[in-house]
Amino acid sequence: MQAVSQTGLIKEITGGSIITPKGYKTDGVHAGLRYSKKDLGIIISDVPANCGAVYTTSQFQAAPLIVTQESIAFEETIQAVVVNSACANACTGERGIRDAFQMRKWTAKKFDLPEHYVAVASTGVIGEYLAMDKVDTGIQNFQPGIEPAHSDAFQTAILTTDLVMKNCCYSAKIDGKTVVMGGAAKGSGMIHPNMATMLGFITTDANIESKHLLAALREVTDTTFNQITVDGDTSTNDMVLVMANGLSGNTSLTPDHPDWDVFLQLLAKNCESLAKQIAKDGEGATKLIEVEVIGAETVVDARKVAKQIVGSNLVKTAIYGEDANWGRIIGAIGQSSVNINPSSVDIAIGPIVMLKNSVPQAFSEEQASEYLKNKIIHIFVDLNNGKGNGKAWGCDLSYDYVKINASYRT
Amino acid sequence: MQAVSQTGLIKEITGGSIITPKGYKTDGVHAGLRYSKKDLGIIISDVPANCGAVYTTSQFQAAPLIVTQESIAFEETIQAVVVNSACANACTGERGIRDAFQMRKWTAKKFDLPEHYVAVASTGVIGEYLAMDKVDTGIQNFQPGIEPAHSDAFQTAILTTDLVMKNCCYSAKIDGKTVVMGGAAKGSGMIHPNMATMLGFITTDANIESKHLLAALREVTDTTFNQITVDGDTSTNDMVLVMANGLSGNTSLTPDHPDWDVFLQLLAKNCESLAKQIAKDGEGATKLIEVEVIGAETVVDARKVAKQIVGSNLVKTAIYGEDANWGRIIGAIGQSSVNINPSSVDIAIGPIVMLKNSVPQAFSEEQASEYLKNKIIHIFVDLNNGKGNGKAWGCDLSYDYVKINASYRT
Repeated sequence: MQAVSQTGLIKEITGGSIITPKGYKTDGVHAGLRYSKKDLGIIISDVPANCGAVYTTSQFQAAPLIVTQESIAFEETIQAVVVNSACANACTGERGIRDAFQMRKWTAKKFDLPEHYVAVASTGVIGEYLAMDKVDTGIQNFQPGIEPAHSDAFQTAILTTDLVMKNCCYSAKIDGKTVVMGGAAKGSGMIHPNMATMLGFITTDANIESKHLLAALREVTDTTFNQITVDGDTSTNDMVLVMANGLSGNTSLTPDHPDWDVFLQLLAKNCESLAKQIAKDGEGATKLIEVEVIGAETVVDARKVAKQIVGSNLVKTAIYGEDANWGRIIGAIGQSSVNINPSSVDIAIGPIVMLKNSVPQAFSEEQASEYLKNKIIHIFVDLNNGKGNGKAWGCDLSYDYVKINASYRT
Repeated sequence: MQAVSQTGLIKEITGGSIITPKGYKTDGVHAGLRYSKKDLGIIISDVPANCGAVYTTSQFQAAPLIVTQESIAFEETIQAVVVNSACANACTGERGIRDAFQMRKWTAKKFDLPEHYVAVASTGVIGEYLAMDKVDTGIQNFQPGIEPAHSDAFQTAILTTDLVMKNCCYSAKIDGKTVVMGGAAKGSGMIHPNMATMLGFITTDANIESKHLLAALREVTDTTFNQITVDGDTSTNDMVLVMANGLSGNTSLTPDHPDWDVFLQLLAKNCESLAKQIAKDGEGATKLIEVEVIGAETVVDARKVAKQIVGSNLVKTAIYGEDANWGRIIGAIGQSSVNINPSSVDIAIGPIVMLKNSVPQAFSEEQASEYLKNKIIHIFVDLNNGKGNGKAWGCDLSYDYVKINASYRT
């Protein structure tokens, strides 16, 4: 990826969403799984779309993930994805899998699609069964469209403890054609390592074969969705799904295509935007924390250290308290499994250098205090041990995180 | 270890401490590193003691640990350990190491010992230098003795955010001699994996060579200190040090000694007691959580899963909220790196079975709620996947954890 030099090629479409690319409709309805909020959503393409998806690394994959993988395996093409909140349909045994297949079947029937053209996703409480009669009614009530109200309805329907909707939209020129990509995501708790740890849906009108789309998604996920953490816990239901319906008319994208890097950047922009929106809306969060690590032996090492720092409860509480306690950053670095030279580390919080070659530097507490009042906090670490660079994103740990999670289910 | 059958051989000595074994004195003074609390402590044996110690796995080992390792390496014998709170003397470069050596030198001079007979430990804020004039004065003011007031003074001097002193004392018959072992510990934040993650001092009048003592300590640490977690963060300063001065007069203990297992149990009782006291006094904790995992492929796997559960922020907040959200336990198990059979897991919280062969079981929310009001919460998991059993201990995550850590340094 020639990220820096080509950034100018990617244009943000303000107010855009998953229905901004050509040929997508969406909707969200109140099926009754929740008391009053919308709780069932759909994205549907006018034509079959190539697709790629990545899933949670949890050993307990929820039923909808199993069904979605079965759908995609059939011919790597889908046309719709149906999503519910309130109930994760996870740890629900064979009945859960039957329910997820039924949800797929009803959706396919409603829109006159082959069943394997439908993907399924769920989010909510683990270990409870779906109220299938309500799901049925909800599906019947879908009326997908392309108004902003439709995309708001979808985005509302997929939220759980999220406070805000997460969406993005960017475009790029590929083959002289305007390719548009939009995304929607949910997730603010159980946000951690190794895939998604949330639901993300990305639509594009790019023309690209599924196998290349999946390869691109995997590459980009490693530096975006897999680099955010809210609480260190990985969900059973996480999934990022990309649909590409080809309506923009570019010649099919492959790694040999002259604009392949532009496509990777377009995908990265969307994924990073959603990932950061999720981190920022972490349960109880008051600040977004961005950690940048340079000088590691490898990029993987840099990402690991960045994520260890942004995942430390002690760092997170210090940032919440606006306390420039860089010792906790050292604590997190020291605990990581990568090779460190303990006498060559630099640390800065914002513009303020606090450690240079592992020696504490005098700094103004007042200036630090002032910087830490910001809503976005940047932590910079140079390990001076190689050429690997990486970033991670998270949020502070507040009273409200505890409040939200002490009473989620009841 | 024939733990179960021989437990009766270990007797608790109520009110006992690090000075209950023969030949140990202690003291704690206010050196002025803190505003008014005691902040400098010493344990000293009447005669040179064999010793073993285990240290933090952090890549940034603090200066006092480097000095202690140098002391012990000399002839695996020490006679005193000097400890300060308020300042960790970590990430303080060469000056920090010089300061720790100086602290050792002053202590040796005060008690007329060879310098390498003195071990050094520190706990407190990372990245600040020790106020050496105050340390000097404090050392001069030590007046070690064997009254309860002396051991209270030591235990107070080593605390940081701890709310309570942590001590224990047990005895056993070895060779027909009464061997006594006592312990003191501090730690309630930065409590996590792989060694100590706190300071622990254990004294005994057993006769045992240092190499066997160290082997015993390592074995026992894996199932006790290394199985507690408060916040997932590993400190730069953690250490557990055992001194054995031989005054009980037993024949020297080796793994071939008929009472070797009794000695291991005696050590395990002390370590487990201190470990659980630390977990219970975790920053902001309102409940001690004990997780017992059976049926893993190996004991190491069982310990890993147990620790993953007790370290999950989501499990910890659910227990704080007295919410029987077993889905979060499944989440934590699924995230662990050990081999799981996703369809054979049983989960119980206290006496209430919530999952059987990975199928949710109906249970009384009222009964669960009642159980979760207890101060000690037992989570039981059977993976039904082998014969490996293990335990881990931690605490709930409360508003007060956030409060304490948002304002620790300032």
